[in-house]
Amino acid sequence: MKAEVITIGDEILIGQTVDTNSAWLGEQLHLHGIQLNRVVTISDDASSIREAIDDSFRHADLILMTGGLGPTQDDITKEALADYFGTSLERKHDVLNKIDSYFKSKGLEMLESNRKQADLPKDAIILENVRGTAMGMWFEKNGKVLISMPGVPYEMKGIMLDHGFRNIQEFFPTKTIIHQTIQTQGIGESFLAEQIRDWENALRNDGISLAYLPSPGLVKLRLTAHAENGDRERVRKKIEKYVSELEKRVPQYIFGREKDTVAMAIQRLFQSRNLTLSVAESCTGGLIAQEITAVPGCSAHFLGSVVAYSNKVKMTLLGVKEHSLFEHGAVSEQVVKEMAEGIRKTLQTDYSIATSGVAGPEGGTEEKPVGTVWVAIAGANKTIAKRLNLGKSRSRNIRISMLSVLNWLRQEIISGSFE
Amino acid sequence: MKAEVITIGDEILIGQTVDTNSAWLGEQLHLHGIQLNRVVTISDDASSIREAIDDSFRHADLILMTGGLGPTQDDITKEALADYFGTSLERKHDVLNKIDSYFKSKGLEMLESNRKQADLPKDAIILENVRGTAMGMWFEKNGKVLISMPGVPYEMKGIMLDHGFRNIQEFFPTKTIIHQTIQTQGIGESFLAEQIRDWENALRNDGISLAYLPSPGLVKLRLTAHAENGDRERVRKKIEKYVSELEKRVPQYIFGREKDTVAMAIQRLFQSRNLTLSVAESCTGGLIAQEITAVPGCSAHFLGSVVAYSNKVKMTLLGVKEHSLFEHGAVSEQVVKEMAEGIRKTLQTDYSIATSGVAGPEGGTEEKPVGTVWVAIAGANKTIAKRLNLGKSRSRNIRISMLSVLNWLRQEIISGSFE
Repeated sequence: MKAEVITIGDEILIGQTVDTNSAWLGEQLHLHGIQLNRVVTISDDASSIREAIDDSFRHADLILMTGGLGPTQDDITKEALADYFGTSLERKHDVLNKIDSYFKSKGLEMLESNRKQADLPKDAIILENVRGTAMGMWFEKNGKVLISMPGVPYEMKGIMLDHGFRNIQEFFPTKTIIHQTIQTQGIGESFLAEQIRDWENALRNDGISLAYLPSPGLVKLRLTAHAENGDRERVRKKIEKYVSELEKRVPQYIFGREKDTVAMAIQRLFQSRNLTLSVAESCTGGLIAQEITAVPGCSAHFLGSVVAYSNKVKMTLLGVKEHSLFEHGAVSEQVVKEMAEGIRKTLQTDYSIATSGVAGPEGGTEEKPVGTVWVAIAGANKTIAKRLNLGKSRSRNIRISMLSVLNWLRQEIISGSFE
Repeated sequence: MKAEVITIGDEILIGQTVDTNSAWLGEQLHLHGIQLNRVVTISDDASSIREAIDDSFRHADLILMTGGLGPTQDDITKEALADYFGTSLERKHDVLNKIDSYFKSKGLEMLESNRKQADLPKDAIILENVRGTAMGMWFEKNGKVLISMPGVPYEMKGIMLDHGFRNIQEFFPTKTIIHQTIQTQGIGESFLAEQIRDWENALRNDGISLAYLPSPGLVKLRLTAHAENGDRERVRKKIEKYVSELEKRVPQYIFGREKDTVAMAIQRLFQSRNLTLSVAESCTGGLIAQEITAVPGCSAHFLGSVVAYSNKVKMTLLGVKEHSLFEHGAVSEQVVKEMAEGIRKTLQTDYSIATSGVAGPEGGTEEKPVGTVWVAIAGANKTIAKRLNLGKSRSRNIRISMLSVLNWLRQEIISGSFE
């Protein structure tokens, strides 16, 4: 069974909004054993919508359509769908009551434009949206299905999780694709490929495909295999064998699987060993703290971070010596070590990390060009630092610095270098 | 002249990667007056690639294709393109030399897989990629053009900016679409629509279309109009008139235009008035500092932030009283005010902001359910605080808290409430 996603919205075509819905739907469809064939993003007009549906129904049995259902005047999807499926809009009073309760629960007044969201196609099955006022709609035609949902990710996901996937599984029989993802940090795509070439060849000969998925600072490896009914457990074990083999082979680069982040790996490591962590950030500007606190439950190991953007803060809150700043500059081995030691001492944690660098786009010198970043780790017995030589892009430099120092901390603690 | 984007990559279809390239290309094409008709994301296989090209050439004159050019074994795009355009791959020695220099400049050793990236279609024009080793390729057929580029955003953007757009403008004549975007914070889509209904109607009657683009905590308004040759200045002025009118009407919600962030608005405001800012964050976990420091030049007004995740840090670094934590809890008006006052005093800034809340998913109580967030602003003469009642999603709660407190700070300073 094949599916396609149709995303409606001029805002995506003119680059005002990044489409994150398709990635989420693609992932969820795969988890449900459904192959996503294509994603098509089209303009907010009736003829494009009609043409895209015709086209997708030629390739696939299921269309997931997002966008174009807001209460404001720029949305025409609902009318176009009613027309396509040969029905018309009618005010659904049970839906109107739900929208009314939704507004009451938020203590807000209901507007006429909100009331209109209860005008829905007669012949569609309504998939309730409890997170907003634009309902999901399920249409059937010649044994094929189209689900239309609002484009707001939070609402779309809610409708799919509450109703969409269950209804799809009841309507269509499905088969299985098995994936496993390995998360790596600290090595480029081609260097990693070179190091693991024989492993990769054995994998492919065993019927498992491999994809390298690079993003700034990270390379994900995705293993994929198909499984027949009754064969799932065997295929899953085969994939697991290869994954464990690789984890033993390059442990310094592999920090996790699937959706793991380096911060999650740190959290598992610190909490299993009862360790605490503090952070002092200059060029990363709060991103390290943000990445750590994005993981629920982080308060058991993470005490806090000082974002010491100015030299004054480095001195006041971290105890960096004025002499060190004057002699070596803020971006230096000496200062980044003092930052790490300062925050570790003040917050009395087992470990601390620190960053200081020239993120760009301005501020580089010949000796310390844009992309020069010092990172440090302080523990009870020693403080270590290293210099990263990154590129010209501010946001990439900040992100790669954060990933590098967190993965370095992970490596150093696992290797026992601080014991 | 119409364009389409074809994105190649199983990683997008199974949701491992979010496609940000299309949004960037859409935006840039619009700036160049080229309409992006559709975005199609397809699988990494030869027949899907061939079918997608045929299909897009039926609708459009220009195809921008991203992805599928990496050095590892999962990439087959180059061969598929050579085949489609009736040519074959040959090793290009000038390209090989460039790849060689690229590796030398990074101090890295060149691998055989990198060498293969110099194997390129005989009849394609090579668009040099100075940021990586996968070159861009320009193909022509029956007066139509296909540009193939690597999927890494940094490299793809570089190729388009260095060569792509200039070559397109030389090859095709173009017309003009004019956009203006207004950024709002602090009001929902339908409430905003209700407040500005007469303005919106006047706008539409004047031939300008309007789209509401909501994202967590923000609503963007996009005005769009077409302009004939020689008419651009008049249309631009007409749009400007409506935008200024709205800025006067709801200044509390409008913090900027186009790609402005609330942090940029704060930076302009603080730097024009020679003011300084410090931050104390609990539930936002560094996101406020991160948002502020994402703007180059922020060091002129932003001194730093303390991410006080534990109560210990609130007391040690911010001077919050143990009694207040015990009596009111960390998520309270009293504590958030003490946090703001503490950081302002320690770092001696003109203003400070603070956050303390239950971001979720755990930690809620009946009195303070998940989504309860206190935010505060401290100035020389007073400290003010307010309670936000947000939802159940951790990442949304953190993001909306950050946006709300920054926009509130902007409003309070503009309104002169602290003077």
